[in-house]
Amino acid sequence: MTPFRWRSRVYWEDTDGGGVVYYANYLKYLERARTEWLRARGVSQHSLALERGILFAVTSLRIDYRRPARLDDELIVSCEPRPRGAAQLAFEQSIHRAPAPATEPEAPSAQLLVSAEVHVACVHAQSFRPQRLPAFMLEALAREPA
Amino acid sequence: MTPFRWRSRVYWEDTDGGGVVYYANYLKYLERARTEWLRARGVSQHSLALERGILFAVTSLRIDYRRPARLDDELIVSCEPRPRGAAQLAFEQSIHRAPAPATEPEAPSAQLLVSAEVHVACVHAQSFRPQRLPAFMLEALAREPA
Amino acid sequence: MTPFRWRSRVYWEDTDGGGVVYYANYLKYLERARTEWLRARGVSQHSLALERGILFAVTSLRIDYRRPARLDDELIVSCEPRPRGAAQLAFEQSIHRAPAPATEPEAPSAQLLVSAEVHVACVHAQSFRPQRLPAFMLEALAREPA
Amino acid sequence: MTPFRWRSRVYWEDTDGGGVVYYANYLKYLERARTEWLRARGVSQHSLALERGILFAVTSLRIDYRRPARLDDELIVSCEPRPRGAAQLAFEQSIHRAPAPATEPEAPSAQLLVSAEVHVACVHAQSFRPQRLPAFMLEALAREPA
Repeated sequence: MTPFRWRSRVYWEDTDGGGVVYYANYLKYLERARTEWLRARGVSQHSLALERGILFAVTSLRIDYRRPARLDDELIVSCEPRPRGAAQLAFEQSIHRAPAPATEPEAPSAQLLVSAEVHVACVHAQSFRPQRLPAFMLEALAREPA
Repeated sequence: MTPFRWRSRVYWEDTDGGGVVYYANYLKYLERARTEWLRARGVSQHSLALERGILFAVTSLRIDYRRPARLDDELIVSCEPRPRGAAQLAFEQSIHRAPAPATEPEAPSAQLLVSAEVHVACVHAQSFRPQRLPAFMLEALAREPA
Repeated sequence: MTPFRWRSRVYWEDTDGGGVVYYANYLKYLERARTEWLRARGVSQHSLALERGILFAVTSLRIDYRRPARLDDELIVSCEPRPRGAAQLAFEQSIHRAPAPATEPEAPSAQLLVSAEVHVACVHAQSFRPQRLPAFMLEALAREPA
Repeated sequence: MTPFRWRSRVYWEDTDGGGVVYYANYLKYLERARTEWLRARGVSQHSLALERGILFAVTSLRIDYRRPARLDDELIVSCEPRPRGAAQLAFEQSIHRAPAPATEPEAPSAQLLVSAEVHVACVHAQSFRPQRLPAFMLEALAREPA
């Protein structure tokens, strides 16, 4: 199964005075892709919080920064989830720089910038106590996007 | 002429503890739309900075916050530029909430969340001294996107 | 009466690829100073939200960017509030760069970087409907910090 | 030797719609403490970049989120560096919530919110190629703050 992929663009807001994306901002791209993976399965986190009182909270992560992203880069963010016990998910994620539009015969390939593993717990929206993953989420983990 | 429009999604990163988008973050949406307006006219700000040594710097702005944007909202950001002297541009901008996908006969209309006027100067990338707008920019102001 | 002042430092997170502070991030410094002005009067916004269900929401602002702030700059952010009707406050604010520690006889003076006027409404934490400023706030407006 | 410590306050800008600090923003607190650890040893990163053409770039990190920080919390961020080869530093870091001012006999103790290990490489400011740590940095690693 190919992993879920989501594209994001690098804007001025993402860069820092070193001319590259600030190290914390890659976590935003990773989170957008996890959100869009959920949305593609029909899950709105806004509704989850309002109607069921549950949130997803990151409990730990490991990230390797291999090459910097720069202003105007188009990024391809991947997201491969798997259950981790009854109340957690583990996401293998990566960020590649999309190749510039090919003007020559050999299409250049995407460059790996970042790889990460992110652990996310299902928690109660007020108390932040762990909650079992809802059944529809466990099903979503096995289902293809609509 | 219809104004340029660019869509952005509200993610967790954009919201604050009040449950709505943090007031400074609307400026990021406005800037993304100005960047995409330039990109649609073939202008890469990364190349502008590297090859011509010029940047666009915001010199002043006025913004009215009418209704808050919330997690998962899809936003439509508009951008209407006009020259303002030899070295500045003025952008009339607005942010609307895109209507949720219509499931009923009468399509709901987009809601105005924010309106703004942003003044931007062309400056030297190192000294931040004002520079005349390059000729190709003045032409771009009169041209439709490719 | 001298205006309230609060110091902030410029870190990598605040800068952008132009080598200066990103234009939206000055709004964070302005907000920190308004928060600290309230705190100096014994007002915790966290308690206000939890116990009284009220928030302060920015309804409009105007900002002039005169000179850019850079990495490592120490900033002095001022904040002069006045009531504006029964449910709003207006804040005159400025950001100066603190002079580097003087090593010579004539101390250099602080440089004005940004000036702003920010309008803030008292709103209900859920509905965002306007609320009258609580009596203790109106008193705080006339009172010196503890 | 006690680790270096730096205090930061949680503002609205740091929180997200879940009512707690957004997970990427803890990385900003960690970076502020590393910057202040350097500053306490007389090292300005702005000067390092301008005069010697070197930057510090994070190459990998691991972070555990144990308890969420909330609006108005005062945080104590620690930073214990050690050399890691000729061109890298490893920082053991933690974030504690400072106890509220004690009004009762037994002072409450600080609560651990986050622990992290951050690897940082010394790189050339333009090419991002690894550089040996400058001699003064290796000395700084062994020296107490001025």
